[in-house]
Amino acid sequence: MGQVAWKGLFLSLFDYKTEKYVIAKNKKVGILYRVVQLSILAYLVGWVFVVKKGYQDTDTSLQSSVITKLKGVAFTNTSELGERLWDVADYVIPPQGENVFFVMTNLIVTPNQRQATCPESVSIPNALCDKDEDCPAGEAVVAGNGVKTGRCLKDRDSIRRTCEILAWCPVEKRSKPKKPLLASAENFTVYIKNSIRFPKFKFSKVNVLATNNESYLKNCRYGTEHPYCPIFLLGNIVRWAGSDFQEMALEGGVIGIQIEWNCDLDKAPSECNPHYSFSRLDNKFAEKSISSGYNFRFAKYYRDAEGVDYRTLIKAYGIRFDVMVNGKAGKFNIIPTIINIGSGLALMGAGAFFCDLVLLYLIKKSNFYRGKKCEITPGLGGGDTPDQVCCLLLEFPEEKKSFKEHPSFPKMFSGILSLQQCVATTDL
Amino acid sequence: MGQVAWKGLFLSLFDYKTEKYVIAKNKKVGILYRVVQLSILAYLVGWVFVVKKGYQDTDTSLQSSVITKLKGVAFTNTSELGERLWDVADYVIPPQGENVFFVMTNLIVTPNQRQATCPESVSIPNALCDKDEDCPAGEAVVAGNGVKTGRCLKDRDSIRRTCEILAWCPVEKRSKPKKPLLASAENFTVYIKNSIRFPKFKFSKVNVLATNNESYLKNCRYGTEHPYCPIFLLGNIVRWAGSDFQEMALEGGVIGIQIEWNCDLDKAPSECNPHYSFSRLDNKFAEKSISSGYNFRFAKYYRDAEGVDYRTLIKAYGIRFDVMVNGKAGKFNIIPTIINIGSGLALMGAGAFFCDLVLLYLIKKSNFYRGKKCEITPGLGGGDTPDQVCCLLLEFPEEKKSFKEHPSFPKMFSGILSLQQCVATTDL
Amino acid sequence: MGQVAWKGLFLSLFDYKTEKYVIAKNKKVGILYRVVQLSILAYLVGWVFVVKKGYQDTDTSLQSSVITKLKGVAFTNTSELGERLWDVADYVIPPQGENVFFVMTNLIVTPNQRQATCPESVSIPNALCDKDEDCPAGEAVVAGNGVKTGRCLKDRDSIRRTCEILAWCPVEKRSKPKKPLLASAENFTVYIKNSIRFPKFKFSKVNVLATNNESYLKNCRYGTEHPYCPIFLLGNIVRWAGSDFQEMALEGGVIGIQIEWNCDLDKAPSECNPHYSFSRLDNKFAEKSISSGYNFRFAKYYRDAEGVDYRTLIKAYGIRFDVMVNGKAGKFNIIPTIINIGSGLALMGAGAFFCDLVLLYLIKKSNFYRGKKCEITPGLGGGDTPDQVCCLLLEFPEEKKSFKEHPSFPKMFSGILSLQQCVATTDL
Repeated sequence: MGQVAWKGLFLSLFDYKTEKYVIAKNKKVGILYRVVQLSILAYLVGWVFVVKKGYQDTDTSLQSSVITKLKGVAFTNTSELGERLWDVADYVIPPQGENVFFVMTNLIVTPNQRQATCPESVSIPNALCDKDEDCPAGEAVVAGNGVKTGRCLKDRDSIRRTCEILAWCPVEKRSKPKKPLLASAENFTVYIKNSIRFPKFKFSKVNVLATNNESYLKNCRYGTEHPYCPIFLLGNIVRWAGSDFQEMALEGGVIGIQIEWNCDLDKAPSECNPHYSFSRLDNKFAEKSISSGYNFRFAKYYRDAEGVDYRTLIKAYGIRFDVMVNGKAGKFNIIPTIINIGSGLALMGAGAFFCDLVLLYLIKKSNFYRGKKCEITPGLGGGDTPDQVCCLLLEFPEEKKSFKEHPSFPKMFSGILSLQQCVATTDL
Repeated sequence: MGQVAWKGLFLSLFDYKTEKYVIAKNKKVGILYRVVQLSILAYLVGWVFVVKKGYQDTDTSLQSSVITKLKGVAFTNTSELGERLWDVADYVIPPQGENVFFVMTNLIVTPNQRQATCPESVSIPNALCDKDEDCPAGEAVVAGNGVKTGRCLKDRDSIRRTCEILAWCPVEKRSKPKKPLLASAENFTVYIKNSIRFPKFKFSKVNVLATNNESYLKNCRYGTEHPYCPIFLLGNIVRWAGSDFQEMALEGGVIGIQIEWNCDLDKAPSECNPHYSFSRLDNKFAEKSISSGYNFRFAKYYRDAEGVDYRTLIKAYGIRFDVMVNGKAGKFNIIPTIINIGSGLALMGAGAFFCDLVLLYLIKKSNFYRGKKCEITPGLGGGDTPDQVCCLLLEFPEEKKSFKEHPSFPKMFSGILSLQQCVATTDL
Repeated sequence: MGQVAWKGLFLSLFDYKTEKYVIAKNKKVGILYRVVQLSILAYLVGWVFVVKKGYQDTDTSLQSSVITKLKGVAFTNTSELGERLWDVADYVIPPQGENVFFVMTNLIVTPNQRQATCPESVSIPNALCDKDEDCPAGEAVVAGNGVKTGRCLKDRDSIRRTCEILAWCPVEKRSKPKKPLLASAENFTVYIKNSIRFPKFKFSKVNVLATNNESYLKNCRYGTEHPYCPIFLLGNIVRWAGSDFQEMALEGGVIGIQIEWNCDLDKAPSECNPHYSFSRLDNKFAEKSISSGYNFRFAKYYRDAEGVDYRTLIKAYGIRFDVMVNGKAGKFNIIPTIINIGSGLALMGAGAFFCDLVLLYLIKKSNFYRGKKCEITPGLGGGDTPDQVCCLLLEFPEEKKSFKEHPSFPKMFSGILSLQQCVATTDL
């Protein structure tokens, strides 16, 4: 017989237990409920699955490598430099061809600087002086080029006197060319090779079209008609970023080249292609503030026959290009699918919860519905009295005003007095 | 008495309201429901907690700094350079030892270039010419080294004529060595020091084993038997990345060194260790396309006694190493734990929802269950008639076919006619 | 009539179906349930909405560009270098002013190195020798500067003998200055311009105060009283990172400058400001291990009148600054709002689920509540007998022990024997 019991127990394990429903023939709430259900369904299908591809497992930890290579030469003919030809090794800094590269488009050259003493540049306020006392020896000039020697000098080609300093002399003259020196940089091209890899899916690709047509890759230029050509004209990049090249070449600036890989690996690999976008990164506010644009100083060091160091100081203006790669790959996976469906259905519960609130508290006749929704256990004497009361009580807290008018108030009162009994009855 | 009422109200606040259940003695659905429950439980425990560590608060915003230092010398003896020894300052570019560094393994040197005129390299198609007219003066050679002067010359050691150009002369001869010059770079070592910090948990660590055994750290080499030694043999790194060093040294390439910190801070800090992986970043497609491998040009600038600049142009082939650090730390936190448990349980509701659908619409006898599931309020005259009808109606929409055959159809019809009444009854 | 039926169907579609409740007058569970409800509500409002701003759509894919510019000069007077002034072009590596820059604060200079043969440094263990046999010709010195020539020499200014090597001679003497050469680097300033852009919201900003007061931006220094001044004193940065500048200047190190943009775009753009934090990235463990601090070697190459290359090798110690930008912008969006509310409500269901478990299995009298919770369909003979049994059965599985003592056990047993009938009854 024990076994029989166990058997019964075991069998009963597989009975299905489901909530008992009450039907409220209330069109308002009914419609509300259906609307909520539909909108949740719409959200689940439309947003979670179609838009956000909720059925996919995604990989955003992109492994990327960028190799950049510039091409182009510029010929300049200036008083200080004479006839000069600039090639890649001259104007690209740093030369390694990484994802950040700088193209020099304008420069101020101060040749043959040596460690010596000379008057500070007049353009530096703190260096101006009237007598030697204004130049305490050994003190560094704030935002200046050297250390004061204690004398106040008048530079040959200037009317004002400045402190003499120990520095790399002669100091740089602050005179930016009116027009960019390497204006023709607009026609330079940059070849951007970007190899990516999604480790989770072991998927890798290059932004270079997998063609055997050598000449195409040598001669194409990226554009609307060649969206997958990896060679860009600097002029175009700047224009697409919404700036004017010549103006930028003069002051310098920073351009961002975003490469976006958004791959649906449920489709063919050939569908997974880069999308390029260009933006000006050093933005316009900067114009008003100090050191607008982008420039920096560097020096080439030489040593003369006597073994004395001297250098050529170069203040380089130009455009820095930052290549930024980011991407996302998705592939069907059962786990996120189930989770999304599940949590979507779970939302339905929330919808019902919301409708209950409306039904039980916000609409007229809500008392009635509360009554129906609550279980009525057979009471002592008068039918549904005390528990009905308990039940209503339970649901009441909010509406104190309509309380006294409540039909079953007297009974309720008695019920309140006999809460114990109320329980007792249910215990019956 | 008022108080008593309030007291009652207050007490009743703490009654517990729970759904009323119907038991469907239907093994199919029952088993289905249990299966759903179990799988949700399995998902919650197995996936969310064990695999995904759902009980932990995680920090992925890793602060990392990488310092790299190469060691090794190479001796070369070539016709153009003679006997030469290469040390770190010669072959590492840039020298700073950041997370990206380039080791030069092969190079084409073009010494003593000066600003002058000379015939363009014959390897550039656009430079070939038959007569001076083919070389319009002032025009830059596309993908070339200079600006045309207007003359068509024949270089001494070549049979073909090319345009004369103003450029850094002589121009580079495109002749890559058959075998890498610094083949012995395979034996160079790199010391990678990676310090990380998880700000949220104020936890920091270094990939250098916290040992006082100086000599171990000087002499160990990373490998399966020394997984925490921070010194790597370049040859090994390339091999682990699945490439051949000598081949790569010839053409150049990019290797990614991923350092993965995956730390469970509920365990001892000594359990939090880096995991290294190596991969070839510039991938195989590239071989077919232009500028396969990795190389770039840079120049060393000199000035002769007359103060004229001249330079040595170097086309450097080599291997670029990108050290990429990413990590994740987790530590027990009550909030994510509760949330995960909660949403897991919420999923159960979804399971029930799903089973209801089956029970009420997909199986035989579903009508019967719908009937049970629906409240039957005492009707006017004929027992359960009208509401039963309303109830069934409610549940019907889908199955129009089986509609007419429905046993209680006549009643139902009458019920439909008296929907108002139907409500009325419920209002009783 | 058909239409009428359809009409009925259609209308009934909008009836509202809601669960039927049982009221358990059990204060324990009741309170528990209210507590659960309240805590879920608190979590939803307090955590999800107030703290985590769950009503906002967020963008973390920050586009950022950093431009850095150092200012300051240092004067040194050493035996080997004589009087020398260091300016930006001398001590900043690399010069480009990117987000990672290195300030040289200490150095070991080895001038006039030429390709030749000389004894290896005595500080390299592997180079020590007693006789020529210890120096096999052509073998590279491990962690050394060159390739052995096969001879064992005694350097003039040393007592020990070392192998002669082919290398850049003379080799570097390992003698670090006791105090940093450029100690005054503490007073250098760095101007950090950081422009950011949140693509999703098309919002961009600069960390430079949008003021027209030129002089303010030239003269301010970042600090508690000037939180939005973009000019930093190196000394302060290091101190804020919790290190001592002079000590760090001697050994070198890495400092991280985090710029955090945490923008609530529902507020005014002027509310969106950067927050700076500073930390030492190469951490203390390192002190114990090899190559503590941060240093690297680089060379300046010269060519003498005979066209022979020689170089000045510089081992640079200094501080590397890594500027790291990250940020997050949020803006109100209806979708996340709804989702968060919904899933929050869904959690309520979980709460109820939990309370049910308590009510039905953990407290005394749980049998009674199980009975109440289960539907009792009119049975055959003795009132609620068989189904009551089925019902209880269903709920039983766990508590086998208290099973036999169960009041309705005899009935239950009969019930078990007649499970079929049990179903039959429900089918009635």
